[in-house]
Amino acid sequence: MAKQDRAIRTRRAILTAAAKVFEERGYQAATITEILTTAGVTKGALYFHFQSKEDLAQGVLSEQDQRMVVPDRPSKVQQLVDVILLHAHRLQTDPMVRAGVRLSLDQQAKGLDRSGPFLHWGRIIGDLLEKAQAQGELLPHVVPSETADVIVGSFAGVQAMSQALSNYKDLPDRICALLRHLLPSVTLAPALAAVDLSPGRGAAVFAELAESLDQEEFPARAAG
Amino acid sequence: MAKQDRAIRTRRAILTAAAKVFEERGYQAATITEILTTAGVTKGALYFHFQSKEDLAQGVLSEQDQRMVVPDRPSKVQQLVDVILLHAHRLQTDPMVRAGVRLSLDQQAKGLDRSGPFLHWGRIIGDLLEKAQAQGELLPHVVPSETADVIVGSFAGVQAMSQALSNYKDLPDRICALLRHLLPSVTLAPALAAVDLSPGRGAAVFAELAESLDQEEFPARAAG
Repeated sequence: MAKQDRAIRTRRAILTAAAKVFEERGYQAATITEILTTAGVTKGALYFHFQSKEDLAQGVLSEQDQRMVVPDRPSKVQQLVDVILLHAHRLQTDPMVRAGVRLSLDQQAKGLDRSGPFLHWGRIIGDLLEKAQAQGELLPHVVPSETADVIVGSFAGVQAMSQALSNYKDLPDRICALLRHLLPSVTLAPALAAVDLSPGRGAAVFAELAESLDQEEFPARAAG
Repeated sequence: MAKQDRAIRTRRAILTAAAKVFEERGYQAATITEILTTAGVTKGALYFHFQSKEDLAQGVLSEQDQRMVVPDRPSKVQQLVDVILLHAHRLQTDPMVRAGVRLSLDQQAKGLDRSGPFLHWGRIIGDLLEKAQAQGELLPHVVPSETADVIVGSFAGVQAMSQALSNYKDLPDRICALLRHLLPSVTLAPALAAVDLSPGRGAAVFAELAESLDQEEFPARAAG
């Protein structure tokens, strides 16, 4: 059990180091040697967890969607908004999430399959839209998979713009503006009127979830 | 006159080479020496036109908004759609435009001010929205600058998603889907109903404009 804990912590240290090196150098220029040095682990430990640089990048890419699940809400449109604003909040505050999102937009990362996060998020958003549709919250013409793709793609760009213009300071405002522009085209007005779409919502959802999570899962946050 | 033509052609050759090298290596890893070799010009010629690597990158960044201006349309919403779909078409077909858009999303490009294209496009789209508002095509609550930012940011992400998932093959479809999701939240229904928002629109606008442009300005296209 203690041994398993240690393995989890080592894996996490390696991924944190990889995220840092990928952010600084970009995927193409990053080397495993540099990640080793930054993580302060042995070569054996690294290769026990990850086979290659691509494997490390896939680990960072998938970290952005781990461990924080918004609970069921009566309104599926609210749940969708919460998932998106929570992700924006984590992107603003968690270097690992940021590194994952940046990697997925690194168009110089040759040989790295960056489709994963787009498809993964597309499925999450698409599922929520299907549930919203089933309980009559959406306009009749909506095709959930198409709307999901529009949301995922536009989120990626709005975060990049926020990074370029304000280093993420205005991210919650920009994502709320995006949702205020997208949701009226797909949601029935009464369902939308009841939704909390304020810029502080992401931080509030994060606080709600963090309370219920074991501190052990957030060593960085527990320390900070 | 001939001398000036030669200077324009040399400048263009250097920018084309820079675009190629930036796309292959990323901004950070690209070197002026490599751009020199690719362009096949002298060091003196390059430094006559560009002072530094950043200067070259700014040249590529600003190429994406040059030379193709959609003429005035009676419906400003149609004009807005035409500007956006023309840009999508050029992104799909013109390596220089592609390189500029990618550079503006290159989060590893340290020391390169990437805000230019976001702000530039924000102004173009914002101006058109103000005109649309002035002639009563928009819903009363619309704030043109905010909507412009949402459009510019989401365009950037949807193009990145199209690149990651289909190497730009599905770009016109994705951008039309984006506009079908954004425009109903800002446009009066009768104004929107008259707008051509089909995926072939970008190529049609391009053909309309290319006819009226001097072939001299599109040496690559004239040769191809």
